[in-house]
Amino acid sequence: MKLAFIGLGNMGSGIAQNLVRAGFELTVYNRTRAKAEAVANARVADSPAGACGEADAVMTMLADDAAVEGVVFGENGIASALRSGSLHVSMSTISTALARRLTSAHASRGQRFLSAPVFGRPEAAAAAKLVVVPAGEADLIDRMKPVFSAIGRATFVAGSEPWQANAVKVCGNFMIASMLETFGEAFAALRKSGVEPRTFLEIMNTLFSSPVYQGYGAAIANQRFQPAGFALKLGLKDVRLVLALAEESASPMPVASLLRDQFLSAMAHGQADWDWSSVAASAARQAGL
Amino acid sequence: MKLAFIGLGNMGSGIAQNLVRAGFELTVYNRTRAKAEAVANARVADSPAGACGEADAVMTMLADDAAVEGVVFGENGIASALRSGSLHVSMSTISTALARRLTSAHASRGQRFLSAPVFGRPEAAAAAKLVVVPAGEADLIDRMKPVFSAIGRATFVAGSEPWQANAVKVCGNFMIASMLETFGEAFAALRKSGVEPRTFLEIMNTLFSSPVYQGYGAAIANQRFQPAGFALKLGLKDVRLVLALAEESASPMPVASLLRDQFLSAMAHGQADWDWSSVAASAARQAGL
Amino acid sequence: MKLAFIGLGNMGSGIAQNLVRAGFELTVYNRTRAKAEAVANARVADSPAGACGEADAVMTMLADDAAVEGVVFGENGIASALRSGSLHVSMSTISTALARRLTSAHASRGQRFLSAPVFGRPEAAAAAKLVVVPAGEADLIDRMKPVFSAIGRATFVAGSEPWQANAVKVCGNFMIASMLETFGEAFAALRKSGVEPRTFLEIMNTLFSSPVYQGYGAAIANQRFQPAGFALKLGLKDVRLVLALAEESASPMPVASLLRDQFLSAMAHGQADWDWSSVAASAARQAGL
Amino acid sequence: MKLAFIGLGNMGSGIAQNLVRAGFELTVYNRTRAKAEAVANARVADSPAGACGEADAVMTMLADDAAVEGVVFGENGIASALRSGSLHVSMSTISTALARRLTSAHASRGQRFLSAPVFGRPEAAAAAKLVVVPAGEADLIDRMKPVFSAIGRATFVAGSEPWQANAVKVCGNFMIASMLETFGEAFAALRKSGVEPRTFLEIMNTLFSSPVYQGYGAAIANQRFQPAGFALKLGLKDVRLVLALAEESASPMPVASLLRDQFLSAMAHGQADWDWSSVAASAARQAGL
Repeated sequence: MKLAFIGLGNMGSGIAQNLVRAGFELTVYNRTRAKAEAVANARVADSPAGACGEADAVMTMLADDAAVEGVVFGENGIASALRSGSLHVSMSTISTALARRLTSAHASRGQRFLSAPVFGRPEAAAAAKLVVVPAGEADLIDRMKPVFSAIGRATFVAGSEPWQANAVKVCGNFMIASMLETFGEAFAALRKSGVEPRTFLEIMNTLFSSPVYQGYGAAIANQRFQPAGFALKLGLKDVRLVLALAEESASPMPVASLLRDQFLSAMAHGQADWDWSSVAASAARQAGL
Repeated sequence: MKLAFIGLGNMGSGIAQNLVRAGFELTVYNRTRAKAEAVANARVADSPAGACGEADAVMTMLADDAAVEGVVFGENGIASALRSGSLHVSMSTISTALARRLTSAHASRGQRFLSAPVFGRPEAAAAAKLVVVPAGEADLIDRMKPVFSAIGRATFVAGSEPWQANAVKVCGNFMIASMLETFGEAFAALRKSGVEPRTFLEIMNTLFSSPVYQGYGAAIANQRFQPAGFALKLGLKDVRLVLALAEESASPMPVASLLRDQFLSAMAHGQADWDWSSVAASAARQAGL
Repeated sequence: MKLAFIGLGNMGSGIAQNLVRAGFELTVYNRTRAKAEAVANARVADSPAGACGEADAVMTMLADDAAVEGVVFGENGIASALRSGSLHVSMSTISTALARRLTSAHASRGQRFLSAPVFGRPEAAAAAKLVVVPAGEADLIDRMKPVFSAIGRATFVAGSEPWQANAVKVCGNFMIASMLETFGEAFAALRKSGVEPRTFLEIMNTLFSSPVYQGYGAAIANQRFQPAGFALKLGLKDVRLVLALAEESASPMPVASLLRDQFLSAMAHGQADWDWSSVAASAARQAGL
Repeated sequence: MKLAFIGLGNMGSGIAQNLVRAGFELTVYNRTRAKAEAVANARVADSPAGACGEADAVMTMLADDAAVEGVVFGENGIASALRSGSLHVSMSTISTALARRLTSAHASRGQRFLSAPVFGRPEAAAAAKLVVVPAGEADLIDRMKPVFSAIGRATFVAGSEPWQANAVKVCGNFMIASMLETFGEAFAALRKSGVEPRTFLEIMNTLFSSPVYQGYGAAIANQRFQPAGFALKLGLKDVRLVLALAEESASPMPVASLLRDQFLSAMAHGQADWDWSSVAASAARQAGL
């Protein structure tokens, strides 16, 4: 299968390299060309359209809705170049609304579309240990299974409509963000009570025995928020996406609403580029710490 | 060391039996005598005071503040009977305020006091796999170490003042309760989006790889809330305790505030005796499910 | 001054008629022509562009951002037809973002722009008793003063940039929406306490002596939510607008977040076309009423 | 009718003086005797019990539950001294739980009890312009009508059980507190948007035309929080009381929960003795102001 890959940021570069390693014939494109050239044994294209060429599937891994819209609908975009019957696989964390728009836009051009967002940090992307969550027509997912296996440790089908995968993705990030805020509130109250944060952290590690709690809990206990693994402003973007899901499904999500306010307060205090675990600082400030 | 143990409910009976197994000479008391008699190879007392007798330490594991106050300050209570220099170890999930009152009440009688609440379900108590969180004077904790080892898999010292252990305990339960609510909101939005709850659950299990997420997530995904492992009305009590901590430390905990409202809504809908994971039904109802 | 007026709904028709009464030469346009023809002594145009003609100022009073964008930027829209130096006065409740876009779009065409949203119900519009809140360049506001006087009882200048008037407008609606929710929670708790809602209402009328409390309080006390004076789905739109302001100003508004969730719950229970005061039913349902 | 009055703080002294003016034979008691002696033409007692003497009714106006409990159940308290058939009228803002306890405690002694909390500031108390909200047995309320008329501008009967008046009172204060927070959020967002707070205030005054909005809105717009008309720590007490009502009626009140957190944040920032309108500073701080 001939593949194209667009978007070689922290996540995309690891994924692309693993696709080459797995033997796929790969063409890559990135706005900053140097990152494209860094992928060993891949052909470098000059534009998203140029990457499509003879590709059976073009995969995109971009920062947000705007970036995906630019690459798909912009000048020399995918929509204008992808061969009829070929497939666009969007791996980005985008809104369910954009996923629906992509579904119909590609269909109207005889192209096909899957959403396949992933869970995992850049290290997991590099180690081919992502969790891949595709949604869309079953035959397309089957066709892509070898690709997903080459980049992840597990694949879970979210549904038959692409946007459902994005719903799952934003809910997953919501679960993590909620944990960050809850940790933040607990640590603030305990610090004011004279309890050593690391003691609470150790207990929570024993209680939950989850690497997610361990990693983020340590960041918050130690108040070590830089450099950012995942920037707070991107975390706010994800909170916005889950709130959009809440709105379109008429399903109140009060924890998400609270997260939005705590992320906004963090933005107001200059934390846009800190790690998103620093949302915990909002609760601490409210406690006068 | 001669021990007394008061309160042989789901948690206490497992703990008491493990103390006997570990070779401690044990006297037990329970309001319903049959439960006391069910502890093999223990002496049964007729009252809390009777249980104290020659004990070096009396341990209590009771439902709430009122029960502990009754057993300590009521007729034939511990306060009136515990030998000078002997130790009361409270393992119950009680308020930090009561822990402080017990500290000073025992001190004024020449008795000593530790808080040592535990994390774990009844099965963990029976299997001697609790996580024990003592706080108080270091020499007392040292003295009790063999006891804690006999009932748990790990011991973490929360601080030098007994109430700090209770602060940690209620914050730990708060972490779990927050997860329940967050799961509830995510599942509600996903059900309205046509996503199969079990798919999301599998992904979250892979993402967090935490038995706590696995167990509670399954209960919520399957909406299986009876019989209760831990009754919702007791969960509300614990939310109240963490809010009391927030208040006394002047540390806002907005997630805890939200939990209180969702637990109250569950109470208003007749879920007092369901499992506390059924707080997830509040979010579902708000979404019209 | 020659005026054009576009959008003759419940609000616009009253305003337009008052402009004619005050002696302004008026051209009107409405998508449904019959409503345009109902304005006595006004010329009826066939399109927004047609209404602009020789007008010194064109006023728009439309339902939401999309309607304003259509009328301004759509085919035969205002942007393409308004004479250089002429003025567009937007009275609609729109986003601050759209107000900024209109400001620059008109400026780039040599046209001028004011935002002048109004407070008041359709009856106030008909009685020329609106409160008008213009923002923009001072000379433009001065030029329009006689127009504002013809339609309202008071004019308050919000600032020198048009979007600031929209910020004030959405905050004003937020103040009312918050009152609705608070009333809803109080009435729910009091009904469950056996207190007659009308008694509480009378006391609040005496305490606040505000016609706003009186009117909305009565609707909630009597649970009389139909026909809608202002539809709940439009109320939700306004909550969205204030949340957008919160976001762009990095200013958390937790009451607005809560309102969003209560409005969403109301939407999930089929109240989209009820009066927005019916958001109170969300709190009642959460209390099991 | 012979009356006794206990508690001559800012509110009580105005009320007591008006009772004398209206011709009632009055005995007064206050912990700080000077305040009792300041009431012209009243007899001064040495203790609550001493004030009861021949009184047909003893009225209490005290700071909180603890103060009322002390005066009623403490040494030389009302409970031990009030003549059988005589009446205790509690005007304090106390918990519904204490109102129920007083009801049964007095009944068990052959005494009678009414709750009659009031709305109004000290100036309204001095001017006999309070709003009085009695609840209890109808014949007792009838008996007290002339008394209530002497101190207020309106009387509203809340129900046949005394605690219902306290439920109404705490809900009324909740309505005001919610307005404070909402104003705070709106002012914060508007200040960050460059809108002059006084402009928004003027518009809100025109919109709501309520003296309550006018007075508190001005305090918040001008950030003038000292001296306190009503201390923030007492406002927090009232929020606690309404949350207790929410809990006992199983009626979630999310706005009250939010208020609690904002008041706690204010406490954490040293505002305990500022006016309660300064809760608005919490929202401002969260916005980075």
